[in-house]
Amino acid sequence: MENKFVNYFSRITALSIQETNAIAESMIVKKFNSGAIILKQGEPANDTYFVLEGCIRQYCLVAGEERTTNIYTEDQWIIAFNETGETTPSSHFLICHEDTTVVVGDEQKAQVLFAQFPRLETISRLIVEKAFSEQKKNTDAYLIEKPEQRYLSLQKSRPDLFQRIPQYQLASFIGVSPESLSRIRNRLSKKPSATIKKP
Amino acid sequence: MENKFVNYFSRITALSIQETNAIAESMIVKKFNSGAIILKQGEPANDTYFVLEGCIRQYCLVAGEERTTNIYTEDQWIIAFNETGETTPSSHFLICHEDTTVVVGDEQKAQVLFAQFPRLETISRLIVEKAFSEQKKNTDAYLIEKPEQRYLSLQKSRPDLFQRIPQYQLASFIGVSPESLSRIRNRLSKKPSATIKKP
Repeated sequence: MENKFVNYFSRITALSIQETNAIAESMIVKKFNSGAIILKQGEPANDTYFVLEGCIRQYCLVAGEERTTNIYTEDQWIIAFNETGETTPSSHFLICHEDTTVVVGDEQKAQVLFAQFPRLETISRLIVEKAFSEQKKNTDAYLIEKPEQRYLSLQKSRPDLFQRIPQYQLASFIGVSPESLSRIRNRLSKKPSATIKKP
Repeated sequence: MENKFVNYFSRITALSIQETNAIAESMIVKKFNSGAIILKQGEPANDTYFVLEGCIRQYCLVAGEERTTNIYTEDQWIIAFNETGETTPSSHFLICHEDTTVVVGDEQKAQVLFAQFPRLETISRLIVEKAFSEQKKNTDAYLIEKPEQRYLSLQKSRPDLFQRIPQYQLASFIGVSPESLSRIRNRLSKKPSATIKKP
């Protein structure tokens, strides 16, 4: 399964055998059981993760209530930013929604790797730029799309989530109450063109 | 004014004279008048900008209506992501809200610079990570904060915008109608603890 990580890099650019070996040797793989909390709100957030297999849900507690702010599945990055090198308290929890295997990114190990293979730093920069661009699209979607459109966009871009995540958590991720999501689904089920996936 | 760009980098890490000179020599500065459209929705978006002075508003047209999705001022980056090297059509307009001076980022020039000074690529990666982290906070704010909280957060984090941007555009940026923003302002003006800035 660890090969998936090297494959991910090779999809961005062709890697030399030396680069492939260096990535494989320096990466740290961790496995978590479903239900494991990887990070708590308020704890120092230093680690970056790449999801090899499984599903991690990010949520905040707002007045004692969980609000799902992101859901990470295979091939996605959870990037902790740490400009100053100091530990910053996390604004959210990370919980494994399924048995999950990740590669843990370590800035110090990365620096050693990049010093030897500068091209890997370019790839890393492009990966963060891509993550940034996707995050930007998400933010724009909240400003320009109505909840119904956001539901349809999510159904199109990440259909697997509708099989993996309970509806009340998806509602939170879309930014509506579970009741509103039910109304959206009912409304769409009456439109002949829309396809509704069973939860 | 161009020194501001070098200063921005030096705030992240101490630069050598060679690195400072290399940045200053390779950077492209452009000036735009207020009202100038830098990028149109649908046009290829390749350039990255750093705002030296002025204000750039990002908006999308939704059913013929402008929706403000971002506002960039001094020391902020507008990052165009282009993983494949192909041109991708822009999802938004960029318009200068004031007379504006920017540094234009050019990926090819950057690659030449990074080959000579690999440390500058590390700094660039950290800059994108920071931009990513800020973007993520914005997305989370739409999911977990009520419009009134988003208004107060914006007033706290970017008080200058309330002097620079008309209220209807700020309303759009916060994700509410101008009427809702008026109601929020009225409600807050009746709370003794809240401070309302005159538009």
